[in-house]
Amino acid sequence: MALNDVLSRIDADLPAATDRLMELLRIPSISTDPAYKADCDKAADWLVADLNALGVKTEKRATPGHPMVVGHVDGDGPHLLFYGHYDVQPVDPLNLWTRDPFDPQIEDTPAGRVIRGRGASDDKGQLMTFVEACRAWKAVNGSLPCKITFFFEGEEESGSPSLVPFMTDNAEELGADIALICDTSMVARGVPSIASQLRGMLKDEFTIIGPRIDLHSGHYGGPGLNPLREIARIVASFHDEETGRVAVEGFYDGVHEVPADQLRQWQSCGFDEADYLNSVGYTQPHGEKDYSTLEQQWARPTLEINGLWGGYNGAGSKTVIPSEAHCKITCRLVGDMDPDDLRRKIRAHVEARLSPDAKVRWDNDLEGARASVMNIDRPEFEAARQALSDEWKREAVFCGMGGSIPIAGHFKSILGLDAMLIGYANEDDAIHSPNEKYDLQSFHKGIRSWARILDALTRA
Amino acid sequence: MALNDVLSRIDADLPAATDRLMELLRIPSISTDPAYKADCDKAADWLVADLNALGVKTEKRATPGHPMVVGHVDGDGPHLLFYGHYDVQPVDPLNLWTRDPFDPQIEDTPAGRVIRGRGASDDKGQLMTFVEACRAWKAVNGSLPCKITFFFEGEEESGSPSLVPFMTDNAEELGADIALICDTSMVARGVPSIASQLRGMLKDEFTIIGPRIDLHSGHYGGPGLNPLREIARIVASFHDEETGRVAVEGFYDGVHEVPADQLRQWQSCGFDEADYLNSVGYTQPHGEKDYSTLEQQWARPTLEINGLWGGYNGAGSKTVIPSEAHCKITCRLVGDMDPDDLRRKIRAHVEARLSPDAKVRWDNDLEGARASVMNIDRPEFEAARQALSDEWKREAVFCGMGGSIPIAGHFKSILGLDAMLIGYANEDDAIHSPNEKYDLQSFHKGIRSWARILDALTRA
Repeated sequence: MALNDVLSRIDADLPAATDRLMELLRIPSISTDPAYKADCDKAADWLVADLNALGVKTEKRATPGHPMVVGHVDGDGPHLLFYGHYDVQPVDPLNLWTRDPFDPQIEDTPAGRVIRGRGASDDKGQLMTFVEACRAWKAVNGSLPCKITFFFEGEEESGSPSLVPFMTDNAEELGADIALICDTSMVARGVPSIASQLRGMLKDEFTIIGPRIDLHSGHYGGPGLNPLREIARIVASFHDEETGRVAVEGFYDGVHEVPADQLRQWQSCGFDEADYLNSVGYTQPHGEKDYSTLEQQWARPTLEINGLWGGYNGAGSKTVIPSEAHCKITCRLVGDMDPDDLRRKIRAHVEARLSPDAKVRWDNDLEGARASVMNIDRPEFEAARQALSDEWKREAVFCGMGGSIPIAGHFKSILGLDAMLIGYANEDDAIHSPNEKYDLQSFHKGIRSWARILDALTRA
Repeated sequence: MALNDVLSRIDADLPAATDRLMELLRIPSISTDPAYKADCDKAADWLVADLNALGVKTEKRATPGHPMVVGHVDGDGPHLLFYGHYDVQPVDPLNLWTRDPFDPQIEDTPAGRVIRGRGASDDKGQLMTFVEACRAWKAVNGSLPCKITFFFEGEEESGSPSLVPFMTDNAEELGADIALICDTSMVARGVPSIASQLRGMLKDEFTIIGPRIDLHSGHYGGPGLNPLREIARIVASFHDEETGRVAVEGFYDGVHEVPADQLRQWQSCGFDEADYLNSVGYTQPHGEKDYSTLEQQWARPTLEINGLWGGYNGAGSKTVIPSEAHCKITCRLVGDMDPDDLRRKIRAHVEARLSPDAKVRWDNDLEGARASVMNIDRPEFEAARQALSDEWKREAVFCGMGGSIPIAGHFKSILGLDAMLIGYANEDDAIHSPNEKYDLQSFHKGIRSWARILDALTRA
């Protein structure tokens, strides 16, 4: 059977695959720092060469920022679009690394062998799992299993400024049946996971304005309205402390309860609530009282305060009543929540609570993003889930994700594509931090997982 | 009658007195900036020379910072201690000045003639009112009217670090019957005022600590406790929004109601509440509902938020749940409020309201200061009030002050002296700001006022 041959080939080729990944990891493609512009280009060139060697017709495509890499290979069966990114995070603080971030190596650790280096997990190691699966497939079968478009970005860690324009300009070329994204973690170590719902995002920022100028608290302390007190009261009013719910009227419009069968699956997915909370210093969950931590994180909306400031924050004391106080908020959206509608509700909530003589200025007009809920009734999802379960010998789960991954929304809104987010990273991979690593198991079983998924999708 | 001769002499000598003040104003004695150390020294020398010329045995006295100026003259009758400060505020932003801050001149303005320059009002012009009154007295009578100690500081605008040690070390030498302080404003233009009660001060600062590290609001938004939300709730709990009162249990212990006759005096003292509030952008008072603006400012305690900060405050957005949030507060104290006791109550208030998993750290252990309430039953107070009323042809008032003037408390606690705070500044003098001025009327009638007060005190 061809799949078994491919899997054997993957096992045999693992040392060489690891070497190839090391080569890519040695290129310091830090996208946010202009000093590494040539390195980003070099990483793109490396991928272009590697894909062309696989028979994928691949080109580096210029953008106002770092280039895209786009490759096409023809074939029968479904048309897949695979996405990953070749850029990496900066490495500061360098002194906390145990080795040169761009001189990767295999290390033995108590938890197993790992590939240590910047980008090992996010996202070079992950994107190469798919490329290596294709390589093994081709070695055994002489061609790739189906029509595939490869789409690699080099600006993911710097806000993807070129992504939407590029996708919009090349929408026809990037069309496919379904997208595969390899940039996520597993719910728990060894538990294969497909992220099928991502929370959306709304950002806003406001300033409460009180007196015309900063005042002396000896002169105006008492009769004077203090914007810091005002903003504290308003921020405190955002939540009902009894229930943990957001108290903005209509906030939960469009939120749906998680279906019972999905909830059961989540409850048995291996997520360790106590460990998740304890690892950052919590002894208990602090959100909505009627929902588990996992539901709160994956399926419930939030209104979070990300910044709050005003007055004097230097050493010692200053007897000031400041003229202004500021607050930055983000909301995570789920279900059918409408970001524009929600923004209006939040602003109305604040405005209704202003004291006389207090004014509010809204300082953000960024567009919000709806939640992404994948259509897991599509047969590809169940086929991929089965393939993952087979590889990891553990029931794979459709999980949610607390974060907001804009690329999935863009695939849907610009290209009309559902996306399967399948990744093999672990929570302890230290992505964005010193000593990033990728478990050798993630890399090896990740490659094998994609081989099984390709097999399942082409047979589906 | 000697007093009339002194007053005539003052009128005749006004141009020369103004020239002398100009000379002192030309010395840029900015105490907070080490670049002006020699100028502070020069201002002290100028005063030493001027007082010695008056027959006051005066010396410059070294401190770890800028020097004190201490002079003694013997005489019959009461022993007075006169305090002022020769240092001035920095002049930034310089571009907002209409002229060189240290090239003072007389200007005609719609509200009358003013002396424009840094320190004209705070405090060189004010301290020279007393020196010029003494000069005129001596010119007419051949000697000063009574035993006087002159005590000038050069660090008032930089926190008076040497003051308490110097007063403690020289307590015996600085002993007197009563202190006179000329560093305050009149309640309203043309309304002579003796500040007989000053609010005390308590400073504190706290940090709310939530998770062990900054968290991603996508991962922990929902189940995670957010210190910004926590601190907003706690800050909001400090006040009862219905009544405007501070809601800390026992906060008002030691606060006394203002006696009815004093309240009547305040109500007719010429304070224009609407103007006071409107000038900074308020249309109404915002403090305790049952008290007038003047009572709130002079006779009621406050708990004020001076700084509040945590999380991200740069451009754009950062999806962070910060590990810490911070708050600086000051309380103004009145009556018999005990700062140590109050600090315990405020800390208990915060600690009782912490959520599970939230901790508080207290970041300030500065000593508090009780309110100063002068004993206005002493005959000197009524004598001075009458003298002021005679000069300004308007009933002088015993007023409160919202601010906290530590020197008055130090005179009481270190030297056992009551202090009469009598100053001729106007609220629009722009002290600490560009284009500081002192009304020529304040200077002229201020000198005449001290002559009358000296006369009244020596006859009392």
